Amino acid sequence: MGGPGKAKRGIPPKSDFNSWYPAIVEIADLVDKRYPIKGMDVWKPYGWKTMSLIDALTRSQMSRTGHEEYNFPLLVPEDLLDKENQLVSMLKAARDAGVDPSELRMGEEESGFEKEVYWVKHGGNNELEVPMFLRPTSETPMYTMFSLWVRSHADLPLKTFQIVNTFRYETKQTRSFIRVREIHFFEAHTVHADEQGATEQIAEDAEIVQRLLHELCFPAIVSKRPIWDTFPGAWYSTAVDAVMPNGRTLQVATYHHYRDQWARAFDLSYEDGDGSTRYCHQTTFGMSERLLGAVVGMHGDDNGLILPPSIAPIQVVIMPVAAHSDANVMPRVSQLATHLSESGFRVHLDDRDLRPGAKHYDWEIKGVPVRLEIGPRDLASGNCVVTLRTGGKSEIPLDGITQTMTQLLDSVSDELRARSHSYASDMIHPFPGLMHNETGWHLQSPVEDGIVYELAFDGNDADAEVLEKTTGLTLLGDCVTAYDEPVDCAVTGKPTNRRQHLARMY
Amino acid sequence: MGGPGKAKRGIPPKSDFNSWYPAIVEIADLVDKRYPIKGMDVWKPYGWKTMSLIDALTRSQMSRTGHEEYNFPLLVPEDLLDKENQLVSMLKAARDAGVDPSELRMGEEESGFEKEVYWVKHGGNNELEVPMFLRPTSETPMYTMFSLWVRSHADLPLKTFQIVNTFRYETKQTRSFIRVREIHFFEAHTVHADEQGATEQIAEDAEIVQRLLHELCFPAIVSKRPIWDTFPGAWYSTAVDAVMPNGRTLQVATYHHYRDQWARAFDLSYEDGDGSTRYCHQTTFGMSERLLGAVVGMHGDDNGLILPPSIAPIQVVIMPVAAHSDANVMPRVSQLATHLSESGFRVHLDDRDLRPGAKHYDWEIKGVPVRLEIGPRDLASGNCVVTLRTGGKSEIPLDGITQTMTQLLDSVSDELRARSHSYASDMIHPFPGLMHNETGWHLQSPVEDGIVYELAFDGNDADAEVLEKTTGLTLLGDCVTAYDEPVDCAVTGKPTNRRQHLARMY
Repeated sequence: MGGPGKAKRGIPPKSDFNSWYPAIVEIADLVDKRYPIKGMDVWKPYGWKTMSLIDALTRSQMSRTGHEEYNFPLLVPEDLLDKENQLVSMLKAARDAGVDPSELRMGEEESGFEKEVYWVKHGGNNELEVPMFLRPTSETPMYTMFSLWVRSHADLPLKTFQIVNTFRYETKQTRSFIRVREIHFFEAHTVHADEQGATEQIAEDAEIVQRLLHELCFPAIVSKRPIWDTFPGAWYSTAVDAVMPNGRTLQVATYHHYRDQWARAFDLSYEDGDGSTRYCHQTTFGMSERLLGAVVGMHGDDNGLILPPSIAPIQVVIMPVAAHSDANVMPRVSQLATHLSESGFRVHLDDRDLRPGAKHYDWEIKGVPVRLEIGPRDLASGNCVVTLRTGGKSEIPLDGITQTMTQLLDSVSDELRARSHSYASDMIHPFPGLMHNETGWHLQSPVEDGIVYELAFDGNDADAEVLEKTTGLTLLGDCVTAYDEPVDCAVTGKPTNRRQHLARMY
Repeated sequence: MGGPGKAKRGIPPKSDFNSWYPAIVEIADLVDKRYPIKGMDVWKPYGWKTMSLIDALTRSQMSRTGHEEYNFPLLVPEDLLDKENQLVSMLKAARDAGVDPSELRMGEEESGFEKEVYWVKHGGNNELEVPMFLRPTSETPMYTMFSLWVRSHADLPLKTFQIVNTFRYETKQTRSFIRVREIHFFEAHTVHADEQGATEQIAEDAEIVQRLLHELCFPAIVSKRPIWDTFPGAWYSTAVDAVMPNGRTLQVATYHHYRDQWARAFDLSYEDGDGSTRYCHQTTFGMSERLLGAVVGMHGDDNGLILPPSIAPIQVVIMPVAAHSDANVMPRVSQLATHLSESGFRVHLDDRDLRPGAKHYDWEIKGVPVRLEIGPRDLASGNCVVTLRTGGKSEIPLDGITQTMTQLLDSVSDELRARSHSYASDMIHPFPGLMHNETGWHLQSPVEDGIVYELAFDGNDADAEVLEKTTGLTLLGDCVTAYDEPVDCAVTGKPTNRRQHLARMY
């Protein structure tokens, strides 16, 4: 087994992120990628437990905000798509008819779901009368039912969510947690009496995401996506992008304000106090196993994972030392494990007959935040030796250990937050700027690989295309944190407070 | 709203079970059956929460017995079925070659999965190279991976489980929780070094089921299924059948001993201490949302559900009385709700502006075990009024309420156990007996609808066929509780200790 500094079980250095990431997800036993369908991994117990703890954080936020958990069928009959297609056509027709675009600020792209879904056309040896598809997301099945459930103002707001697997027939290269064909997915769908209700929901979603990112200990860029990147049928879409160590951004959450567009398509209306029928306003909020992908990518190091205490399946591993030579060690260690466990910590007692170095090595790979060693000397002194996964080794008294443990875990979380904030801001550089000559637009200096560029931008679609073509990067949209003072737009040169980012997206 | 004795919101009387059951699952808001695919219901929050609490009981048993939770992909490539088909052919060939049947006591029926699964043959607009199907159960995907994971004796036993949805292209009439096309499913799969290890696992499975049935408060008949009802590739299958109020039996759990038959088909072997390669022995243990179907059917009454406290989403509902006329009521009631909630009870405070009768009516339908009322008079006397869903109303002191609440909930569980044991045993009658004359076999008196018949049976396949043909019922197999003293076999007349049952199965 390798000592400090040596490559562990073939873990590539994290500086080679594109090799490190796919290796570590298997070496740390999160998933097994050998299942014979590309992009469908087997979740191993350690990975599944970690994901379940992320789900538990999400459920806790949903409970706090009065959302209720449903579970909708996986299969969607093809004919339900007709309504969605009508919605898309209606939006196209409205634009063609010259409706003021500010009133029609919504995604109009063909949803394209037909091309991205898995189709079920056969049951046993029979061809089905109506083909069905595996849900890629659940607007269609949910809104079909919502229109049966919502009758009057008293039924609103309807705040629902579900945590289910969704499916995409993904043709791009797959990556564990980041781009997969079976996706562990969270989706909240809400229905409101008016636009204001939906707008307030979007604010609540934004706050929920920030609370989750705090627990997961990494920052993200929050942007209102450009119109051409808005979800089909949405008035506007807000996306949350983590900056991964290779400089690519990973969209880990989105929330969409639908106004009443979907409600019109699905005849989702209610009777108001005055007896008139009104269409509902809606929102959707989605997250997925990408949150785990971001945790793995943001926090890990050359020695393995580093899991935030909030989602670590094992927060504290306890390792008895020289238990064979001192019969007092094991009883005391078991007692400590029980005490910590009953105090609400997730504890594992590693009593394998291995030398301490080998145990440390294993738990480093798995990213356990705190390791405790206890041997005869410690029992005598009333102390134990603690090692933090973020670095540092010290002796702490066994007396008052539950308070100390809370502080230690908090210090690991704080350290992870400090590191990831620092890494992410190091990777965001000012945009080098454009110049225009007789051969067209050019960069004032080349863009670097692995960097996210920040810029003021207030141009139109054509101006955005200039930016994306000259850089080969993608515009993330209007950052929710605007500039305090106006800055000159990178293309038009006009002063604006609109802060935007250019990045290579996953 | 109806008073006592009147039909509630159209709930049919439970004596008409075949009308009552499909009505109550929707009236109590467990599911909505209006989703446009037959046999795929939408789980509403109350139903999903109840099912999640059953899952939590199962997970707790899995944790106690050292099983680890995995999550395998939904889709199975068709070519993985080849191994399963080879297994079935091999068993057929062995029997044709005259292998001693006692050595080949295993299900040999064509698995028939091909005819019962949903097929995915298209991704987007492309026809897939290898068709895939939605898992009906996970032997094939799991054992493909197990053969990669198990290398040596040290990897055994491997004790796995997952809680996922499975799919059957069901052509029979569907019924919520009982016969559906998308099934909320639990499956444990274990791998052992030898037959003895697998046999001990089967004993552990049996014990787990008994603990769960105790929590869910209903009894069941446990039988070793006849050979012709054994799971394909299994050496023997044990099934757990609840006796529903209409006298039909509902199979709520099964566990199968596979010996090494599946392991041979999937090349699942390990290197033993002496360096030789041995095939593993395996077991499977399955349960599903049928457990909830049984809970609904066994315990409910004319007024709605009665949920066992172990899985009731709301164990105690607290209803303030005359809160508008006495400002002291609401603070005291909130305080009590918080106190009970912090003591670990699942509590709901119903502060709706409705008269108490209407509230009682709602919570009766939903089967909440305990209802508490508190008004100004109670505050003065230091008491509250408690109503149990199983019957009875009394005054209890607010002092020491957490201990009292534990006793009350236990008394509801005990009452449900007593009732369901009594109902089930009332429905099991001695078999009327057969007689044989020149026109063949005849019943000595006709069998009644809605009755399960108990009998001694030690005959062969042809004798069993006589029983099933004359009665129109199905033989459940050898009951694990044999007769203490020999009884004459219903067909052969020879004394035997083998107790069996004839029933109409769901």
